[in-house]
Amino acid sequence: MARPRTISLDAMGGDGGPGVVVPGAALALGQHPDVEFLFFGDRARVEGELAAHAALARTSRIVHTDITVAMQDKPSQAVRRRGSSMWLALEAVHKGEADCMVSAGNTGALMAMAKLCLRTMPGIERPAIAGLWPTISKPCIVLDLGANIGATARQLGDYALMGAAMARALFNVERPSVGLLNIGVEEIKGIEEVRQAHAWLKQSELPIDYRGFIEGDQIGQRIADVVVVEGFAGNMALKTAEGTAKQMAAYVREALTSSWAARIGALFAARGLSALKDRMDPRRLNGGPLLGLNGIAIKSHGGTDAFGYASAINVGYQMVESNVLERLAADLDAFHGTLHEAEAARKTS
Amino acid sequence: MARPRTISLDAMGGDGGPGVVVPGAALALGQHPDVEFLFFGDRARVEGELAAHAALARTSRIVHTDITVAMQDKPSQAVRRRGSSMWLALEAVHKGEADCMVSAGNTGALMAMAKLCLRTMPGIERPAIAGLWPTISKPCIVLDLGANIGATARQLGDYALMGAAMARALFNVERPSVGLLNIGVEEIKGIEEVRQAHAWLKQSELPIDYRGFIEGDQIGQRIADVVVVEGFAGNMALKTAEGTAKQMAAYVREALTSSWAARIGALFAARGLSALKDRMDPRRLNGGPLLGLNGIAIKSHGGTDAFGYASAINVGYQMVESNVLERLAADLDAFHGTLHEAEAARKTS
Repeated sequence: MARPRTISLDAMGGDGGPGVVVPGAALALGQHPDVEFLFFGDRARVEGELAAHAALARTSRIVHTDITVAMQDKPSQAVRRRGSSMWLALEAVHKGEADCMVSAGNTGALMAMAKLCLRTMPGIERPAIAGLWPTISKPCIVLDLGANIGATARQLGDYALMGAAMARALFNVERPSVGLLNIGVEEIKGIEEVRQAHAWLKQSELPIDYRGFIEGDQIGQRIADVVVVEGFAGNMALKTAEGTAKQMAAYVREALTSSWAARIGALFAARGLSALKDRMDPRRLNGGPLLGLNGIAIKSHGGTDAFGYASAINVGYQMVESNVLERLAADLDAFHGTLHEAEAARKTS
Repeated sequence: MARPRTISLDAMGGDGGPGVVVPGAALALGQHPDVEFLFFGDRARVEGELAAHAALARTSRIVHTDITVAMQDKPSQAVRRRGSSMWLALEAVHKGEADCMVSAGNTGALMAMAKLCLRTMPGIERPAIAGLWPTISKPCIVLDLGANIGATARQLGDYALMGAAMARALFNVERPSVGLLNIGVEEIKGIEEVRQAHAWLKQSELPIDYRGFIEGDQIGQRIADVVVVEGFAGNMALKTAEGTAKQMAAYVREALTSSWAARIGALFAARGLSALKDRMDPRRLNGGPLLGLNGIAIKSHGGTDAFGYASAINVGYQMVESNVLERLAADLDAFHGTLHEAEAARKTS
C-alpha cells in the first residue's frame, strides 16, 4: 500500500466555494481512502461543510485565510494576494506538504500564481493547460487549451511530451500516441511552427507513438491519446466543441418534447437517453492539469458541482500516483538535448 | 422581373461530378426559374445527366473540356490547368458571361485559380472563405474558414465587411451585427491583431453593428450575424464543431437503438427525430463564398449531393441578386480610407 497522499485544495475557488469543494473531496475520499486533504480558506465555512462528512473531517486539516482570489481579478492583481487560499494551496505543493493541488478559481490567476510559486520545469518557457476531451470511445487529452497564444515548434514538442506524461498517468499506456492538430486546406498546409514540430516529432527518438497531423473533426474519433495544438486555436476548438454539444443537446430535447407522441417515445427510450446524458456529462471529464511546472496543479471548472470536483481531484491523484514529473523532466531533457545537437550540427555545417 | 441570371458550374468538381452538379442545378432551377446555367466539363456526361431534366436542358449550355482539376492536385499544379472545367467556370465570371460560379472541387486549387482569374478587390491582399454555421436559431456567417493562416488587424476588419456584405445578401438585414472571435482566459485576452481590430471596429463609422468579442461557445447562440476569426483558428473551430456534431449524432443513434424499449420510443418520437435530422442536415447550409475577389465564386462541399449542391447555387444566386460586390467595394474603400487617415494623423502628431 502506498503512503498517504496529501492533496491541497483551494476551498474558496469556483462558484460554489466550500459548498462544492468539501463534498467533492468527500466523494474523492470514497474512491481513494489513502488521501489526506488540506483545505485552505474560511475555517468556519469549511468546518460547516465538513460537519456532514465525518470520515473526511477526521483526516483533513484546515488552514484558515480570509483572502480569496475573485473570478474577475486580473492575474496581475491576483499574484499579489500571497495569503490567498489559491496561493497557499500552491505553496503547500512547493514546500512538499502536499503532492498536488486543485483549484476551481480564476484560470489566469491560477496560471500566473503557479508560475511564480512552483516555477517552470528546466527548459520550459511557458506551461500549458491540458484537458480531457470526450470522444466516441474513451477520452483523449488535448493541449494547450489556452494558457498561451501561439507556440514555437519547440513548445509544440514540449506539449507533446507533457501530454504524453499525462496520458501515461491517466490511460496506463507506456508509449502514448500523439497527433498534431493542423488544418486541411492543401495550399497552406499548416504554419511554419506546426510543420517544424511535425518534422521533429517524426524524426526524434521520443518515447511517444507519433501519428502525424490530425484535423479538428478527428479529435472525437480517438485517433490519438494526445492532441497537440497552440493555445489560441486550442481554446477556440474547445469552446466551439462545447457550444456545439450544448446546441445539439438542446435540439434533442426539443425533438423529444415537440409532441405528445415524442414525449411518450422519450419515456420508452428513457434508459437509453439517460445513458446518453451520462455520456455527455462534462463533469466526468473535469480537471485540467497545468503542465510544465515543478509541481502538479489541477484547474477545475469554476461552475462544476461536487461530482465534477471529485473528477478533478482524481486527475491529480492519478498524476501523483504515476510519478509524472520525474519521467517528464527526463523526457524534456532528452528532447531539448536533441534540438541542441541539431542546432549545433546546423551551425558547423 | 429581373434579367435572367447566368451561373457557371464546374461540372467536374466534387466527388459526384455531373451526377451531382446537374441534378443540383435542376433543383436550383425549380427555386429560381430565371437562372440559366453554363456547364463546363465532359459534354457526354453532362448531356447524359441532362436527359432526365428537360426544363434544365432547354435553358442550359455546355462548354466541353477534357481537363479537370483532381481533389489531390496541389494548387500550384492546378493553376496551370487553364483549360480545366474549374478555370473555365471562373473565367466565365471574369468575362462577364456569368454572374457567379460554383465549384465542388479542391478548395486550395479553387482559391488559387480564383485569385489569378478574378483578382482580389482593390486594397484586399488575401480573400477569405466564409460559411454558414448552424445555430439555435437561423444560421450565422463565419469567416475566415481557412483560406489564410493568421490575419492582420486590417484583414480582420476586411473580413468583418466581407461577412457583412454576405449577411446583407442572405439575411436581408441592412446593418448586420458582427462579433470578433477571441479566447477568454483573462491574462492573455487575445492577440495583438485581434485587440487592434477590436479597437478599429468599435470606433469606426462602419455600416455594421459591432458586438465586440465573442467566444467559441457563443457562435451557436446566434449572438451576431457575422463572426470574424483568422483562418487557422476558424478552420479548426469549424472542423471541431463538425466532429462534435457527428459524435453527438452517433451518441443519439446508439441511445435510441440500445434496447427494444428505446427502439419503440424512437418510433413514437419519429416525427420529432426526423425534424431533428433535418435541422442537423449539413446540406442545407452548403455553399461557402470566396470573398474579396472581383466576382462571386462559391465553394460547395466536395462530398455533397444534389440537394446540397442546390444550396450552394442558392447562396451564389442571393449574392448576385443583392449586388454584393459593388456595395462591398465602397465599404472597403471607406474603411481603408479611415485607416489611412489614422495612420497619417499618427505620423504627423
